[in-house]
Amino acid sequence: MTLMEFSIIPLDKGASMGTYVARVLSVVDESGLDYRLNPMGTVVEGEWDDLLELLTRCYRVLEKESDRISVQAKFDCRKGVSGALESKILSVETKAGRSFKT
Amino acid sequence: MTLMEFSIIPLDKGASMGTYVARVLSVVDESGLDYRLNPMGTVVEGEWDDLLELLTRCYRVLEKESDRISVQAKFDCRKGVSGALESKILSVETKAGRSFKT
Amino acid sequence: MTLMEFSIIPLDKGASMGTYVARVLSVVDESGLDYRLNPMGTVVEGEWDDLLELLTRCYRVLEKESDRISVQAKFDCRKGVSGALESKILSVETKAGRSFKT
Amino acid sequence: MTLMEFSIIPLDKGASMGTYVARVLSVVDESGLDYRLNPMGTVVEGEWDDLLELLTRCYRVLEKESDRISVQAKFDCRKGVSGALESKILSVETKAGRSFKT
Repeated sequence: MTLMEFSIIPLDKGASMGTYVARVLSVVDESGLDYRLNPMGTVVEGEWDDLLELLTRCYRVLEKESDRISVQAKFDCRKGVSGALESKILSVETKAGRSFKT
Repeated sequence: MTLMEFSIIPLDKGASMGTYVARVLSVVDESGLDYRLNPMGTVVEGEWDDLLELLTRCYRVLEKESDRISVQAKFDCRKGVSGALESKILSVETKAGRSFKT
Repeated sequence: MTLMEFSIIPLDKGASMGTYVARVLSVVDESGLDYRLNPMGTVVEGEWDDLLELLTRCYRVLEKESDRISVQAKFDCRKGVSGALESKILSVETKAGRSFKT
Repeated sequence: MTLMEFSIIPLDKGASMGTYVARVLSVVDESGLDYRLNPMGTVVEGEWDDLLELLTRCYRVLEKESDRISVQAKFDCRKGVSGALESKILSVETKAGRSFKT
């Protein structure tokens, strides 16, 4: 399974891009893949091909409205691991012997 | 105020780096800055100088034990905005007219 | 046209990953897409779908040999612009009125 | 020695940000640190503290003119290695047995 954190924004719409981010998030939310939104991006768990297909769908949504789009994506691909959206945080908390803010 | 998302890992300790991540997170947790841990990184809110000082402290912790360290950091610097750890997510949810998984 | 900068490394092979990077670069070099290698990643120019297909091919090469892979990708998608591997640098140099080290 | 790749852009100035990038690059060029500009960012070599001081100086230049700035930075920190701006590329080329486009 792979975790993908990504963010995608238009660069030609000024500094307030919440409307565009909301559209992208709606695509993620309806994808059926498990995800977590954070203040700097969205982390989605899935198979590589499904994640890249989702990224493409998000890109296509913004492409219709913007002439310049910036996309960042980061992948953590680990064989034999699933449920990593929760287990990575739990593992770090166990090792630290304390809870962190999530 | 600035949001900084960062991750910092040793590259010479094999694929299981939870112990090192736990040490870095403990530094963040004791810093007094507000933060949120997610499955791919940690988002901290603060003034630019305080965030870079925190990043340096985290780096110094790992530097003692590792010969090769990889650091990623991403900053969203916005004048006149504070509480962005919560408000960025709320703003997107309001614009989408629905809640997202966080 | 889109510029994609990416890096892809195994996390379970120790700190010297040049052999794996070399394999990935060979895939890029044989792809027919124009690219530039830099000390921290590789920038490739192409259409969105071709770039994601290339990223997948690079991932598949490492997936055979590694149980944990880290991938970073960053995209600058701009309508009506091609040759951006060269033109972005030239544009900045023109605006600065000087040459930079490349 | 550490390699830092970074990019820093204003988000409230529209899609053409070459003027701002040019100002940042001039700061880098005058810093005395060795660097290479690529189409997606700038890679600088130096000690950790010097690199973070440079990043701060670049941020301060844009902060005067923009209300929202996006910064990305990526660090490869390796003990006992210098000249990595050149040697990382050469090492990959040697391992691949061929030259790549740079």
